[in-house]
Amino acid sequence: MSLTPYQQLEQEFRRLHAFRGALSMLRWDAAVMMPRGSADVRGEQLAALETEHHALLTTPKVARLLERAEAGSSQLEDWSRANLREMRRQRDHAIATPPSLIARLAKATARAEVYWVEARKANDFKLFAPHLEEVVHLVRDKAALLGQARGLAPYDALVDVFTPGISTADIDTIFKALSRKLPGLINNAIEVQADRAPAPLTGKFTVVRQRQLAVEVLKALGFPFDRGRLDESEHPFTEGVPGDIRVTTRFDLSDPFTGLLGAVHETGHAMYDLGLPVPWRDQPVGRDRGLALEESQSLLFEMNLCRSRAFVKYLRPLMEKHLQVSGPEWSEENLYRHLVRVRRSLIRMDADELTYPAHIMLRYELERKILEGGLAVKDLPEAWNTSMDQRLGLKPSNDVEGCLQDIHWGVGHFGYFPSYALGAVIAGQLYEAMRAARPALDEEIANGQYAGVMDWLRDNVHGVGARLPVKDLIQEATGKPLTAAAYLRYLESKYLEAP
Amino acid sequence: MSLTPYQQLEQEFRRLHAFRGALSMLRWDAAVMMPRGSADVRGEQLAALETEHHALLTTPKVARLLERAEAGSSQLEDWSRANLREMRRQRDHAIATPPSLIARLAKATARAEVYWVEARKANDFKLFAPHLEEVVHLVRDKAALLGQARGLAPYDALVDVFTPGISTADIDTIFKALSRKLPGLINNAIEVQADRAPAPLTGKFTVVRQRQLAVEVLKALGFPFDRGRLDESEHPFTEGVPGDIRVTTRFDLSDPFTGLLGAVHETGHAMYDLGLPVPWRDQPVGRDRGLALEESQSLLFEMNLCRSRAFVKYLRPLMEKHLQVSGPEWSEENLYRHLVRVRRSLIRMDADELTYPAHIMLRYELERKILEGGLAVKDLPEAWNTSMDQRLGLKPSNDVEGCLQDIHWGVGHFGYFPSYALGAVIAGQLYEAMRAARPALDEEIANGQYAGVMDWLRDNVHGVGARLPVKDLIQEATGKPLTAAAYLRYLESKYLEAP
Repeated sequence: MSLTPYQQLEQEFRRLHAFRGALSMLRWDAAVMMPRGSADVRGEQLAALETEHHALLTTPKVARLLERAEAGSSQLEDWSRANLREMRRQRDHAIATPPSLIARLAKATARAEVYWVEARKANDFKLFAPHLEEVVHLVRDKAALLGQARGLAPYDALVDVFTPGISTADIDTIFKALSRKLPGLINNAIEVQADRAPAPLTGKFTVVRQRQLAVEVLKALGFPFDRGRLDESEHPFTEGVPGDIRVTTRFDLSDPFTGLLGAVHETGHAMYDLGLPVPWRDQPVGRDRGLALEESQSLLFEMNLCRSRAFVKYLRPLMEKHLQVSGPEWSEENLYRHLVRVRRSLIRMDADELTYPAHIMLRYELERKILEGGLAVKDLPEAWNTSMDQRLGLKPSNDVEGCLQDIHWGVGHFGYFPSYALGAVIAGQLYEAMRAARPALDEEIANGQYAGVMDWLRDNVHGVGARLPVKDLIQEATGKPLTAAAYLRYLESKYLEAP
Repeated sequence: MSLTPYQQLEQEFRRLHAFRGALSMLRWDAAVMMPRGSADVRGEQLAALETEHHALLTTPKVARLLERAEAGSSQLEDWSRANLREMRRQRDHAIATPPSLIARLAKATARAEVYWVEARKANDFKLFAPHLEEVVHLVRDKAALLGQARGLAPYDALVDVFTPGISTADIDTIFKALSRKLPGLINNAIEVQADRAPAPLTGKFTVVRQRQLAVEVLKALGFPFDRGRLDESEHPFTEGVPGDIRVTTRFDLSDPFTGLLGAVHETGHAMYDLGLPVPWRDQPVGRDRGLALEESQSLLFEMNLCRSRAFVKYLRPLMEKHLQVSGPEWSEENLYRHLVRVRRSLIRMDADELTYPAHIMLRYELERKILEGGLAVKDLPEAWNTSMDQRLGLKPSNDVEGCLQDIHWGVGHFGYFPSYALGAVIAGQLYEAMRAARPALDEEIANGQYAGVMDWLRDNVHGVGARLPVKDLIQEATGKPLTAAAYLRYLESKYLEAP
């Protein structure tokens, strides 16, 4: 019996899935295990596999099969039809980023990264500017091609790559709501916390002990150490595929939270991947629903579940046991104060939960203007500093504290930043729905019982895979359209709590 | 300017090299890092990459380019011509092993492996026999196809896969010489050693300490830890490519030699790979010259260089330092006795340097007969036991000690075993030439100075890559045709040394 066009496509994408898994492992190895001197060799391997992946996805054969399968798609059941839609999406993206453009972008971004480092050393944006301009030109080309392929405005097409089904109109609505509320909320939170400064946690906490603590917490969260690993790397990340999922963190010897919460954050990603629909795990519809939803899961774990009074109840005895600490500064109240401290900062990476969205909205505003031609690269520093002053009342004293702090734009990531803040907003809405469905949630968290949380997430988020666009997924999971309301309610109740 | 057919082939094979490197890393990870439960996912990734590697190598495009390049090969300089020859070789091998045959072999060997485990548990060869027969049938098909493609007899074609340019006639000549000399030599060595039984080395040697010792020795040998790693795995192996080479070993807490010499053995492979001609490192001619030569390098390191009085001089103080041991049993003489102890054994894996070739010659004799139809699979146990009795005077009391001890045949490896003994013979001949060229070799070894050894190997073996067939390579490196003479001289002087 011969296979239908749709079944043949499933075979093709099964192979592509295996390629993606292999690429992910090679990236993991590069960051965690690879000897320093082996970067060139690894670069060649990654390039060869990526090129082949792109070639397999853009063959005329796949195009023909897609057309034939789409012609008969009314015969397909829901999941298969959604799978076909995602296949088309992946293939259109690939066609819209031809190898010649990828190669030019790779070259330009490699150069821009070098000059970004130089510019930071010399604290001189002008060293970086011409190379960023070159990248911007190429990203504009890419955005135009993607936009044509997907029937979207250029910047919307970039956002759509990371978060399918979210438009700039959606982002504008949500960010407007945040901009209205957050500045006042930040002021009030800082005022509330004025006489609640936490006592410092002193001591040296060895990696071995911090790791033991992290492993116990991750096990409680359900991380499957028989099909996954926890390692260390310079920046925490998650790689792998369901069936072999690997998270990393970075332990700070003088801070017991950095490494643990990094691992918890990544475990949010890992549990999402593990909960993806098993029968579809090697197909496009079995993948995660993009960056904003990925980030919603990691933030839900780190911020909503773990930076909470309930989690501190669970954590405190584990800290005593593994870190062998004691004393009044290890009280629940003091630990919690550390976890929710609000402080305005110039640096995104140092920002807390409450001030973080301001950093993202600034970048969203500016990257859109740059890409759409409303802001010249040379004028970026001034625009940055003005926006930072308006949003957080802070003035960078130099560009290293300002527009030179992130590498994202230099490596061509436009349309990426919004997903960080969207992730927080989505996490807020999911968390509210989860609390409503599980009235004893705080107790479960305090007892280290996370199976119920995971079940809810699997049923409502993870198990959906990429079957629905983001907004439909949120509507089904929470019974409400995606808005900033639940997120803002969550922030208010957490940060304006009475003493 | 457009590329010549030969230059286009270089591009194609550069890509294939990157694929091979990626595959090697995924295998390394599977044995060293991968969580237990992830084997299925990894299997899919390896299969997808291997299939694609095979497909890329067997495209009509490559066939056309090969024909066109061969037509103009008189224009090419030596290395390029040799490269073209190796490209042809790889492509003919791939064509002769079509995906359908590979798939059937994969299935049959997977099943045979399961029943091999069962048969060992039950000590019942009959459980394994029908599955081994199925594998033998398929290997015969493969050998016939390979033989046609390469103009060789079927079994010769299998040997040629592992050790290019060596025929069964060559092997017969060498093994005949070994069979004439070794039995007497083993008798005499055991007699000589009768009153030299080493005092036992007692104690527990932690992995951390043994690892420190191994790292110091490997550094002295020149292992590049900035472009390589040493890890632990169930069986020692080497994976990777020049630029990212990874060796493993297995440490035995009650034996300070197993882990160290395992690492040294693998470092022999690693240094070979590192010494391959750099300008050709991503081309077929820049690869190692097959299994026998690979094994000659690992054995040269482990047996010739390190199981020596000179090496013990270097090693003893390092053992004292890292393992924190002392006492008369740690004398040079006693350590050396451990390293050269000769004992007849039924099990190949337990065999010492002197008795090892007998195990290989037995397997060579039987696997050839099985493949060529002169021995039925069902009669294998009896033939094994008879041959073992003739060669080492030992009688297996059951098949687990006999023909069920190795998995090689079950997984389809015929023509592979001879390379182990050929490697030892080649090592002996290279070692004699090296000693002649470096009169102070023993002193260098005793002082932990291995740069001269590495230079000699790079100039005469490693740097040749796959430019010459094995026999030509040996002739050029040693000034003599490949024979067993030097190897036998080496064994005699080592094992019949006066007290």
